[in-house]
Amino acid sequence: MLGIFDSGLGGLTVVRHIERTMPAAGYLYLGDTARLPYGTKSPETIERYAVQALRFLRSQGAKTPVVACHTVSSFLYANPNAYRRCAQLFRRNDLFEVVTPTIRAARNTTKNRRIGILGTTATVQSGAYQRGLRGYRAVPVAASVLVALAEEGWAKRGRAVKPILREIMRPFRRERVDTVILACTHFPILTRHIRDILGSSVRVIDPGAEIAAALGSPDLARRGPKRFFATDIPEDFAERASRFLGRSIRAKAVNL
Amino acid sequence: MLGIFDSGLGGLTVVRHIERTMPAAGYLYLGDTARLPYGTKSPETIERYAVQALRFLRSQGAKTPVVACHTVSSFLYANPNAYRRCAQLFRRNDLFEVVTPTIRAARNTTKNRRIGILGTTATVQSGAYQRGLRGYRAVPVAASVLVALAEEGWAKRGRAVKPILREIMRPFRRERVDTVILACTHFPILTRHIRDILGSSVRVIDPGAEIAAALGSPDLARRGPKRFFATDIPEDFAERASRFLGRSIRAKAVNL
Repeated sequence: MLGIFDSGLGGLTVVRHIERTMPAAGYLYLGDTARLPYGTKSPETIERYAVQALRFLRSQGAKTPVVACHTVSSFLYANPNAYRRCAQLFRRNDLFEVVTPTIRAARNTTKNRRIGILGTTATVQSGAYQRGLRGYRAVPVAASVLVALAEEGWAKRGRAVKPILREIMRPFRRERVDTVILACTHFPILTRHIRDILGSSVRVIDPGAEIAAALGSPDLARRGPKRFFATDIPEDFAERASRFLGRSIRAKAVNL
Repeated sequence: MLGIFDSGLGGLTVVRHIERTMPAAGYLYLGDTARLPYGTKSPETIERYAVQALRFLRSQGAKTPVVACHTVSSFLYANPNAYRRCAQLFRRNDLFEVVTPTIRAARNTTKNRRIGILGTTATVQSGAYQRGLRGYRAVPVAASVLVALAEEGWAKRGRAVKPILREIMRPFRRERVDTVILACTHFPILTRHIRDILGSSVRVIDPGAEIAAALGSPDLARRGPKRFFATDIPEDFAERASRFLGRSIRAKAVNL
């Protein structure tokens, strides 16, 4: 069974892609809403939170860990020792994170080798993408505020949000990138506006699609229940997750 | 000695007012940056975090607790039992929070008895201001995204921020309030833009000024050192606090 974890709702953009690729697959989803957002936290704190979340998912029967959170994924990608400490919590001694398949997709997409990275402060500071895209011109932009905008439903109010998005993405235009990575699971919620501003000549990479493709092997897609957990206000989480996934779900409270 | 606590940097807007009123007063300041923001957390989680923070400040010698965080203050104001549990951690069996003096100021300011409240989700949902302003027309608006905008330095980019602020404050115009409470310690950072949009006929209440006035008794203003603590990335906290206070400060890391 898959054990998917994110700081909050953002990882549901990953879940949506997984459900498209393997509709019957069972999974556990944990949103660490009591400590969200992760994108402004230190490496030590991020590792501590990740280990607690993964241990919890393991205790609930997860065999295949999926780190849907970009902040945690970038941290693990850039820190092999921490990666090992997290991976060895599971029998296969491995875990899925969103950075590896996303970097592969970006390399395959760009024509002019100039790639924009839109992430949280922690993701950008981890240097994960800059490392994975060595030999390319990587243009990282830290914009943690977009997490709040996505979480609070501002995607519906394009007129108010676009001036901020335009300001944030100015370096992409200046550096003439032809590919932009949405390096935070929350950002696909704002895709429409991001595409509008970048124009059709720029390709936008959604990591949810990439990790779902990476996971799409038959033995991982075991049929099973889909269960949701949240570390704070599970009712609120369930309500918003239901709206996002288009069906009624419940979430259980957990203390990590 | 004062023991001031907030979820992050926001409480420094309170500190700035305290330093104006009693420049020599010693204080401890704790920013719970590892778990920020509080404004989207549940009442149970908020109380747990508050008790941990107050216990820490007491252990460092604080005698007069000052809850600078609006989310926590509103929760305590609306929940007398939780207030008691927190207050009795200190010998005087009392604590200062920002809601009480702010409500007094708003009542004294309004002429048409229509008062806007700009707060985080948790502050608005606590119902504290609505309760304290019974008999007045209270117009609460939840806008947690402004915390991220203030924390990330967007105050300098008015052109990008104003469309969101205008959208957020639309109910104030519709309800013709003549007074607006900045019911989150972060929001005074955006005051200039907020005033621009509201116009000069609307009075803006800054809780930092009100609590500093409430604290301004000589026996609380004991001369002493000013010390800063943060639960995550203290260097970053110190750098931003130094910029904000206009002098170089250091911050020590603590685990709550």
